[in-house]
Amino acid sequence: MGIRFTEEYPEVNGAFSMEVEKILFRGKSPFQTIEVIETKGFGRVLLIDDLVMLTERDEFVYHEMIAHVPLYVHPNPGSVLVIGGGDGGTVREIVKHPEVEKVILVDIDRMVSEVSMEYLPSVASKLLSEKVICQYEDGVAYVKNTAERFDVIIIDSTDPISVGEGLFTREFYRNCYNILNPDGLLVAQAESPAYMADIVQGISHKLHAVFPKVHFYQAHIPSYPSGHWLFAFASKQYHPLKDYREEKYHQHALKLKYYNSDLHFAAFALPNFVKEIVHVE
Amino acid sequence: MGIRFTEEYPEVNGAFSMEVEKILFRGKSPFQTIEVIETKGFGRVLLIDDLVMLTERDEFVYHEMIAHVPLYVHPNPGSVLVIGGGDGGTVREIVKHPEVEKVILVDIDRMVSEVSMEYLPSVASKLLSEKVICQYEDGVAYVKNTAERFDVIIIDSTDPISVGEGLFTREFYRNCYNILNPDGLLVAQAESPAYMADIVQGISHKLHAVFPKVHFYQAHIPSYPSGHWLFAFASKQYHPLKDYREEKYHQHALKLKYYNSDLHFAAFALPNFVKEIVHVE
Repeated sequence: MGIRFTEEYPEVNGAFSMEVEKILFRGKSPFQTIEVIETKGFGRVLLIDDLVMLTERDEFVYHEMIAHVPLYVHPNPGSVLVIGGGDGGTVREIVKHPEVEKVILVDIDRMVSEVSMEYLPSVASKLLSEKVICQYEDGVAYVKNTAERFDVIIIDSTDPISVGEGLFTREFYRNCYNILNPDGLLVAQAESPAYMADIVQGISHKLHAVFPKVHFYQAHIPSYPSGHWLFAFASKQYHPLKDYREEKYHQHALKLKYYNSDLHFAAFALPNFVKEIVHVE
Repeated sequence: MGIRFTEEYPEVNGAFSMEVEKILFRGKSPFQTIEVIETKGFGRVLLIDDLVMLTERDEFVYHEMIAHVPLYVHPNPGSVLVIGGGDGGTVREIVKHPEVEKVILVDIDRMVSEVSMEYLPSVASKLLSEKVICQYEDGVAYVKNTAERFDVIIIDSTDPISVGEGLFTREFYRNCYNILNPDGLLVAQAESPAYMADIVQGISHKLHAVFPKVHFYQAHIPSYPSGHWLFAFASKQYHPLKDYREEKYHQHALKLKYYNSDLHFAAFALPNFVKEIVHVE
């Protein structure tokens, strides 16, 4: 391997490297450093502050799992809020659902969308969908102040350090709860149980303090630390399995690369060590 | 990070590194180079020819999933053959089943067991169980020539390169079939669908040519390439889900860290891209 990008995994004194063919973009926004690299094995890769945000090779796993799980549980998800997700991958999956009438995307950093539109169009292009409104402002303030109400909120955040930190607090979750309709639900990316048990446990505790129903589900994302990734599912009313709309999934017949109806159920079956981490008395 | 061990992932022009505190053992057997290192994040790690065989941090996932899935499907697994697995981790899980009367472990390399007994006793110590017979010889020749018959065969091999190559052929699978009892079944570690689709596809084709029932199941193993790992389940008669002995699982009440009965079902629900890889017309 010649030139390589290396992401450190400090939780396990480890690191993951990819061979770099080209640095396509490097810029500093007021919030973070953004880079796009061309790699041999993972296609184009979006980096923020030296962490892999997505790779063309496996971004479909994350984006399908964060979007379709909530949208096939809520019976009529007309309005969806995405916090973060400026790269557009989550929006791309959401707009595959004809029931969704309006998507508001709130990302603090306009440059993430601009760069993704230019270098990762297969991920970002649906940001231009007429159903989608992009607002570049602080998600923490947005959920506190907006008069909008939503059926589904998806928290597509970076890690709970620096810019992303405010998206992992109890107050933030409380404000999300307040702007959800009475049968609303929320999904949040929830880090790795294999490497970041403490963070996962914190997310579980804080969500349980706000939502009556909290569940976690998992997926295989090779380019994220440990490859073992969790999502939190927090709901006012609907149960992720009992209220699953399997008939809608079959009716839509979307061509997806990871998600399917068997996997919807399976993703909520957690290994014993993960159950212990997310368990709240 | 100071001194590090790096495993190359040539399929994706990538690499995974761990910080090394100490090199505990390094030796060359007639078959391969064996090392045990002490790492900060993964505990002790067994390396063969510079590839991670197991780490104390996550070996439980692999060993629980390769052993308990077949043993909770076969109604009365009295005799079990393990090919490879000289480190003893698979045997440790097998002997938790009181129904198992006899385990024959056939590994080509005695040094793997000797080194594991000395440096990884929490993994290896059940090699000394009175139910276990260790035979250090070529597994390919063993399955061709033995007069023994088995209820369950577990192929706990290295990758299909060098020493492990013969354990991935149709002829080998055919000989396994021949030494299984009429209701016998086989499980084999089956590499990563995310990084090694060709190898996985090959395993599927070859097993389908020999066994009437072939299924694949998956697990999260962070220290293996991509963290997304498959196991093949090939059976003469029993179906991995319809014939699952859930009552036996609850009756045993083993204390396991990964495997549970919900996860047994869930592990067989594969992502769409994996279904395509293992599909055989």
